[in-house]
Amino acid sequence: MSVLETLRSELGDIVDTSAVTLEAARADRSGHRSAARPLAVVHARTVDDVQRTMRIASATRTAVVVRGAGTGLAGAANAGHGQIVLSTARMDRLVEVRPDDLLAVVEPGILNATLNAQLAEHGVWWAPDPASRDISTVGGNIATGAGGLLCAKYGVVRDAVLGVDLVLADGRLLHLGHRTVKGVTGLDLTALVIGSEGRLGVVVGATLKLRRLVEGDVCAITASFDSVTAAAAASATVTAVGVQPAIMELMDARSLAAVHDLLDLPAPRAGTAQLTVQTDGPSAREEAARVVEVLRSGGGRVVMTDDRAEGERLLGIRRAVHPALKALGTTLIEDVAVPRSAMPAMFDEISRIEEAYGLVIPTVAHAGDGNLHPTFIFEEDEVPERIWSAASELFRAAIRLGGTLSGEHGIGMLKSRWLAEELGEDQWQLQRQIVRVFDPLEILNPGKVFADD
Amino acid sequence: MSVLETLRSELGDIVDTSAVTLEAARADRSGHRSAARPLAVVHARTVDDVQRTMRIASATRTAVVVRGAGTGLAGAANAGHGQIVLSTARMDRLVEVRPDDLLAVVEPGILNATLNAQLAEHGVWWAPDPASRDISTVGGNIATGAGGLLCAKYGVVRDAVLGVDLVLADGRLLHLGHRTVKGVTGLDLTALVIGSEGRLGVVVGATLKLRRLVEGDVCAITASFDSVTAAAAASATVTAVGVQPAIMELMDARSLAAVHDLLDLPAPRAGTAQLTVQTDGPSAREEAARVVEVLRSGGGRVVMTDDRAEGERLLGIRRAVHPALKALGTTLIEDVAVPRSAMPAMFDEISRIEEAYGLVIPTVAHAGDGNLHPTFIFEEDEVPERIWSAASELFRAAIRLGGTLSGEHGIGMLKSRWLAEELGEDQWQLQRQIVRVFDPLEILNPGKVFADD
Repeated sequence: MSVLETLRSELGDIVDTSAVTLEAARADRSGHRSAARPLAVVHARTVDDVQRTMRIASATRTAVVVRGAGTGLAGAANAGHGQIVLSTARMDRLVEVRPDDLLAVVEPGILNATLNAQLAEHGVWWAPDPASRDISTVGGNIATGAGGLLCAKYGVVRDAVLGVDLVLADGRLLHLGHRTVKGVTGLDLTALVIGSEGRLGVVVGATLKLRRLVEGDVCAITASFDSVTAAAAASATVTAVGVQPAIMELMDARSLAAVHDLLDLPAPRAGTAQLTVQTDGPSAREEAARVVEVLRSGGGRVVMTDDRAEGERLLGIRRAVHPALKALGTTLIEDVAVPRSAMPAMFDEISRIEEAYGLVIPTVAHAGDGNLHPTFIFEEDEVPERIWSAASELFRAAIRLGGTLSGEHGIGMLKSRWLAEELGEDQWQLQRQIVRVFDPLEILNPGKVFADD
Repeated sequence: MSVLETLRSELGDIVDTSAVTLEAARADRSGHRSAARPLAVVHARTVDDVQRTMRIASATRTAVVVRGAGTGLAGAANAGHGQIVLSTARMDRLVEVRPDDLLAVVEPGILNATLNAQLAEHGVWWAPDPASRDISTVGGNIATGAGGLLCAKYGVVRDAVLGVDLVLADGRLLHLGHRTVKGVTGLDLTALVIGSEGRLGVVVGATLKLRRLVEGDVCAITASFDSVTAAAAASATVTAVGVQPAIMELMDARSLAAVHDLLDLPAPRAGTAQLTVQTDGPSAREEAARVVEVLRSGGGRVVMTDDRAEGERLLGIRRAVHPALKALGTTLIEDVAVPRSAMPAMFDEISRIEEAYGLVIPTVAHAGDGNLHPTFIFEEDEVPERIWSAASELFRAAIRLGGTLSGEHGIGMLKSRWLAEELGEDQWQLQRQIVRVFDPLEILNPGKVFADD
């Protein structure tokens, strides 16, 4: 019996081989796709479906690509020839909410925004807020170790997961982590699974650490600067004087111009970069006042509001960056992070690379945590080699400045060839061996993250 | 040449075989000691000393026990016959402070309190505050994944370390983690090392995530209750109404009586349990007012102060618990954690075990995060088997309530026999295999955490 026949005989109609489903499973939101369609998509509804799929895959040594909503930006969920796609999108229940213990238990397929809408009724929320929150799953957020806009103040996924239920490559189910805030029993495998991009196992459940909804005002500020380095320096000063904004986003001149164009707003003065800051909580107004002062001292032209709707409108300009850039061509959204104080230097490097390669690289940044998204724009469908050469310089510049290849999108297929440069050969090999402990047959997401297989 | 001769010839006078040093290395602060003195203590001053020691240990297959200040409470640093003790206590420099990037780079031997005294000059602090902070090292805090009093609000060690430099068993040096707040390149080995109790490698440096010093008032509250379950229920209500105290400590009647006795205070009414709460930051006063209200509604007799010295005096009563209990006999300080809502049920279990075994088990708890320290008191020097039987029931009760064996002290030698009950056999075996990836010869802290070797 073929692998497909075995899947069908054991799992029935959750095995999907329709052309449209298989075609969709070739790609995520990175704009890149595999060379061929996968074998089948299994729409798991239960942990048992996942375990049975993994047992078949192990017995037949078939590669498995776990998929949530397919919103990744590094190609980690792109599935190719002969591979089984194991979708957890239909395992989407909020299983338990405990506002008294500030925890929730979820299935992996629940969307981040759906979860938070349900949690809000209980006065609590899960803090990680990737830009994809309306369309990305919590399981995918965990698999990539996602970040977001709010995480300088409220933490990333790593800070917000207490435990994970994991199905191993051979189909066994492990319960990792705790339902308690503290817990130090053996190795912290929960933390190891966060950001492991489908290489260690299938996340089939998670115990999330919640926060109470933040009370008090929300203030929003935008400040325009004559140059991106002035904006970057001003944002570094905000952090340095001790204010902790909830959000602090930076748009360089090219991003800002593209958004104004998309939204039919008057074109900004040439070279104008913009900071968008939000403060919240009991000291929101005092903090906003200090931010305004710092940004004005740094040469910014500042607008401030404590009206929530007007604040959302100001932030909407930042949220329109990705559609605005997509309108300009095919995009490769990069994701380097540097220590906050190195932000101005990183922008200098981006300018240098733009000139050296004759490119424009519009860049937005989560300025509160030093995470930049330089975006390469080109006409071809696939990333041409000259763009990879420029990206390569970008990665090396970030690492030189004490930074990293990826702040929140992960390695996937697109950045695996640079991983060893950041980790060093010894650490790379060690990580590779740890993967083999979890998955000795190497059937889980082969070729992703570690580019040797 | 013997191992000792090789160490001496390669490392010179940092190899210490004096009787008093070897004797001290048999024990930590758990009150337990190994059966015999170790071979030698190497007082490393540099990373190179550590690497050379590990190369000799690998070449000669000699067991190595890494030691900081020896303040552990689970026996993880206790060294025995034939073992090399690798002390990092003299590697105690604060290498770099970056208030703008909210990070510091340290050597492992720096004391937690010394570090924070130096950081305070820069307006920043490292949040983990184990009760041992005056005498414990940052390297030891990392190796145990330490917690403390403040961590319900400000996080545990896992939340406060960006990167770790690790010397492997074979002497190779790895740089794990990032200098950035975000970073998702490959597996999160930094998190894996935190709490690994000396089984994966030697922590020779760390990049710490700092916080700005908290501005605003500090308010302290104590509340006396007629029973420990009333106190536990009131503390759960504080969390449930959405207040986040900086500190919320619970003392049961026996602990409170012991402290009053030690400090020559008037004896509390029989059965009286006490909560000690601290609020800080910009909303300290409002939060304190809400806490007072909740505690009064829960039947508490409440005292509140916004005077810092008076607040420290109130907290001093809680801090005197361990000396007060030590005055009563030999102690075995346990460390279970349960979801906050299960605290009253856990206290009921402790009462049940006291009755069943004819014991008294004074208990204090970090009530803000559900971490309890039930303390067994006995006359013998070593823990007698009837105490272990009672402790065993305690552990199983915590696990049944959704909790864990250890919130912040770790497994070490003392709790390794229960680890598989919490993790499950499959996860225990997987963790064991991961240890072998780092340390194939199994020379690092053998027999600790995993009780098979």
